[in-house]
Amino acid sequence: MASEIREGDYVLLYLDNKRTYLIRAERGKVFHTHKGVVKIDDFIGREFGVKVKSSTGVEFIVFKPSIRDYVYKSLRGTQIIYPKDIALIILYGNIQPGSRVVEAGTGVGALTTALASYVRPNGMVYSYEIREEFLNVARKNLERAGLLEYVELKNKDITQGIDERDIDAVILDMATPWLVVPHAYEVLKGGGFFVSFSPTIDQVMKTVEELRVYGFAYIETIECLVRRIHVEKGRTRPETLMTGHTGYMTFARKSLKES
Amino acid sequence: MASEIREGDYVLLYLDNKRTYLIRAERGKVFHTHKGVVKIDDFIGREFGVKVKSSTGVEFIVFKPSIRDYVYKSLRGTQIIYPKDIALIILYGNIQPGSRVVEAGTGVGALTTALASYVRPNGMVYSYEIREEFLNVARKNLERAGLLEYVELKNKDITQGIDERDIDAVILDMATPWLVVPHAYEVLKGGGFFVSFSPTIDQVMKTVEELRVYGFAYIETIECLVRRIHVEKGRTRPETLMTGHTGYMTFARKSLKES
Amino acid sequence: MASEIREGDYVLLYLDNKRTYLIRAERGKVFHTHKGVVKIDDFIGREFGVKVKSSTGVEFIVFKPSIRDYVYKSLRGTQIIYPKDIALIILYGNIQPGSRVVEAGTGVGALTTALASYVRPNGMVYSYEIREEFLNVARKNLERAGLLEYVELKNKDITQGIDERDIDAVILDMATPWLVVPHAYEVLKGGGFFVSFSPTIDQVMKTVEELRVYGFAYIETIECLVRRIHVEKGRTRPETLMTGHTGYMTFARKSLKES
Amino acid sequence: MASEIREGDYVLLYLDNKRTYLIRAERGKVFHTHKGVVKIDDFIGREFGVKVKSSTGVEFIVFKPSIRDYVYKSLRGTQIIYPKDIALIILYGNIQPGSRVVEAGTGVGALTTALASYVRPNGMVYSYEIREEFLNVARKNLERAGLLEYVELKNKDITQGIDERDIDAVILDMATPWLVVPHAYEVLKGGGFFVSFSPTIDQVMKTVEELRVYGFAYIETIECLVRRIHVEKGRTRPETLMTGHTGYMTFARKSLKES
Repeated sequence: MASEIREGDYVLLYLDNKRTYLIRAERGKVFHTHKGVVKIDDFIGREFGVKVKSSTGVEFIVFKPSIRDYVYKSLRGTQIIYPKDIALIILYGNIQPGSRVVEAGTGVGALTTALASYVRPNGMVYSYEIREEFLNVARKNLERAGLLEYVELKNKDITQGIDERDIDAVILDMATPWLVVPHAYEVLKGGGFFVSFSPTIDQVMKTVEELRVYGFAYIETIECLVRRIHVEKGRTRPETLMTGHTGYMTFARKSLKES
Repeated sequence: MASEIREGDYVLLYLDNKRTYLIRAERGKVFHTHKGVVKIDDFIGREFGVKVKSSTGVEFIVFKPSIRDYVYKSLRGTQIIYPKDIALIILYGNIQPGSRVVEAGTGVGALTTALASYVRPNGMVYSYEIREEFLNVARKNLERAGLLEYVELKNKDITQGIDERDIDAVILDMATPWLVVPHAYEVLKGGGFFVSFSPTIDQVMKTVEELRVYGFAYIETIECLVRRIHVEKGRTRPETLMTGHTGYMTFARKSLKES
Repeated sequence: MASEIREGDYVLLYLDNKRTYLIRAERGKVFHTHKGVVKIDDFIGREFGVKVKSSTGVEFIVFKPSIRDYVYKSLRGTQIIYPKDIALIILYGNIQPGSRVVEAGTGVGALTTALASYVRPNGMVYSYEIREEFLNVARKNLERAGLLEYVELKNKDITQGIDERDIDAVILDMATPWLVVPHAYEVLKGGGFFVSFSPTIDQVMKTVEELRVYGFAYIETIECLVRRIHVEKGRTRPETLMTGHTGYMTFARKSLKES
Repeated sequence: MASEIREGDYVLLYLDNKRTYLIRAERGKVFHTHKGVVKIDDFIGREFGVKVKSSTGVEFIVFKPSIRDYVYKSLRGTQIIYPKDIALIILYGNIQPGSRVVEAGTGVGALTTALASYVRPNGMVYSYEIREEFLNVARKNLERAGLLEYVELKNKDITQGIDERDIDAVILDMATPWLVVPHAYEVLKGGGFFVSFSPTIDQVMKTVEELRVYGFAYIETIECLVRRIHVEKGRTRPETLMTGHTGYMTFARKSLKES
């Protein structure tokens, strides 16, 4: 049965919505938390979703990590792009099982992880990154999520050109997306998707201007705000703190020049 | 080459961001718009992304429809759930290639279309709907998107029970999601995802209460606001009109009872 | 008693939250609505808040117009600035009873109406407008609200200079606010408030740059989103449609140059 | 001249947008900050807006506190209601110079301060609070802002009744506003305003239900979101963190029973 916890699996130890831990199930090992020690052997061989108690009697639930969990855990300390944005990039950028996607920059591989999981089993992500130390982090994150085989990590500067052809989507999360517009146009299939994520409106303006110059159409820029709601009888209300901004997303499709 | 337009393909005729038409490419036929007549023969055999001119000289672009296009076009006149919400349901509900998903109600098949496209090629969507006339519409929409084979449409009342077992996610867009909570618990794998989309906060309160009673964990309720930005040198600003609310999304994971 | 309806008063006929009518109470007259005819004599001499019936038996409530009502009714057809923005401008711009305020452009006098009502009884609004036809509309709107004596309407171009001195606040709702920054600095008291309302981010950027050059401090730019909630047992939810953007508000205070 | 700094004045020492200090100008005294010591004598007799240097050479600007500054400083540590909400309450509740307003609960006097400043010079705020220790804090805050003479602080439970009559507006920021609805109806002028600020949707539902029972009309519930924009050439974007929710505001007007 697919949902039994096996040695070597990554699991998500869940205490509450704000405290979860992504760890590897290694026989004989323990995991230290501020709520006591959890023995890995207590859950190996049991079903995902099982509850275990720490040495101090506090209950944890052992979940199979979701793609969103892998994304969150990759992001630790570099929170630029968020799962909410990734979700929209996937659907609005038409990332599908079988898609051939070019991405830059790889960063820690958070967006890469999500892209790779959705192009499975017969698609591919070509991910460009100039900073080699990031590629190493991304490789580990992708390996942990079991998705490395769907990604080709490339230590190259995408503003210098793209090696691949017949690409379904070019996805950018980098400082100068406008420099990639001509290369993206060249390698995308007719109607293929250009997607750019940028924190500042200045970047958006430059990118959209280039997209218009290079014959892209169906250009849209959006931002996404997610509000968490605290639901409790007599106390239901949106949460006080909220992420007010992560970035703008720009989408466009390649239109052919000759008419 | 995959991106050539063949007879029988569905295509998206694009005039501008607000005016697009999803039509079938049938040789010898024409398509009437208020901007003149477009001849289908003008683009059959050409590449997707090509521009064609109508009889009055207005330019249209012929795109291959994206999943989001199919979703939008399914929704005509019944706009309850939006692509923005669907995007979050897919990622936060961990819908993946290979997932086995139960959905209710089918409605016109908008959410079904997106779910089906992401469980490909070896997953399955079991979609419950009590109103038979909706199932017929949904079937046509799924057929048009080429996704019918990944969906089993069921003319059944999901509040009476769920036939399938070992399910990865139960996705609900219906008036009384709380009535499905016990059935969802029964058929989900350990750690499986429960997702509910509801327009009113009253529905959310009842559903979350039931989720707590039935031992679900990692319960979160969110809402998603998408703002469109008008980008134009000297005139850049968010658009004046905005969809202020579609619905709340509640996510939860099944935790096992014995500890 | 202050709340008796007298002949000559302006009143707000209220049918429901979306249908209200600002009319003058003239003895012997009637008011035609698509819900029948309301006789003015039916409510003259009665107390504000009274209900009257139209010729078709539909109930209207006769309210004393609030400042917000006067503002809304002034805006008919030129909705650029909204009451929500005006509210923030008043408080964040420290408009107070007794304040001496310079405003431009007057437009139809919507913001002017609110400013005038809050500087009463011993303050003054100096309002600049280059388009004479607008000044005439504004004069009528201010007269209707009983606030004309607190406003000096000036048919002058504020980018050419400001006549007044020792001003508490300069409030701008015009296309080129940055051109007014040096004049505002000159005429504001030490610590006085500069406020600018602009629909586009490009205007904001230029204005903030000028504010920095001219020694303004405490510069803040905000936008305000108001969501309406539909409250009804079992159906409580934010409303579907929402105003997504009206404009940005920039606030700053004059700091003196010598230290 | 009104803008000279005199001994005894309260002043706002401004370092940057996040660090401001509300202090009293007392001759011979100093003020200690983590950026060095500021001598009060350095600015007494000078104009508001003047810059002074601390012992470590850091520049501060000496502003005359605005009403919003007094409100912010009153709120220290009890941030429930925010200036953005107060601004809307003032305008939408039609608080005007001359208004007679009933408020509960007083709390630390933040909302009271704003109300008092706008009913000047011939209006009055009657503020109810059951917790005597809060009344003492509120009294000090009102005194500091020079507004105590416009407020009558009452150590009474407003759910037991309201002493005043012919009231223009009843403004509530308390846990059980629905218990005050019948009393508010009794003491409001015809067409008078009922305003309630509540953090939870459950409170809103109960209050709106009571308002309907007691013949209030023009009932509206809104929430207000303010986003701060970071404006800087090449880096313009909304700020990352945002207050996602403070509370809902409900407005209603008294309609008379007999028609």
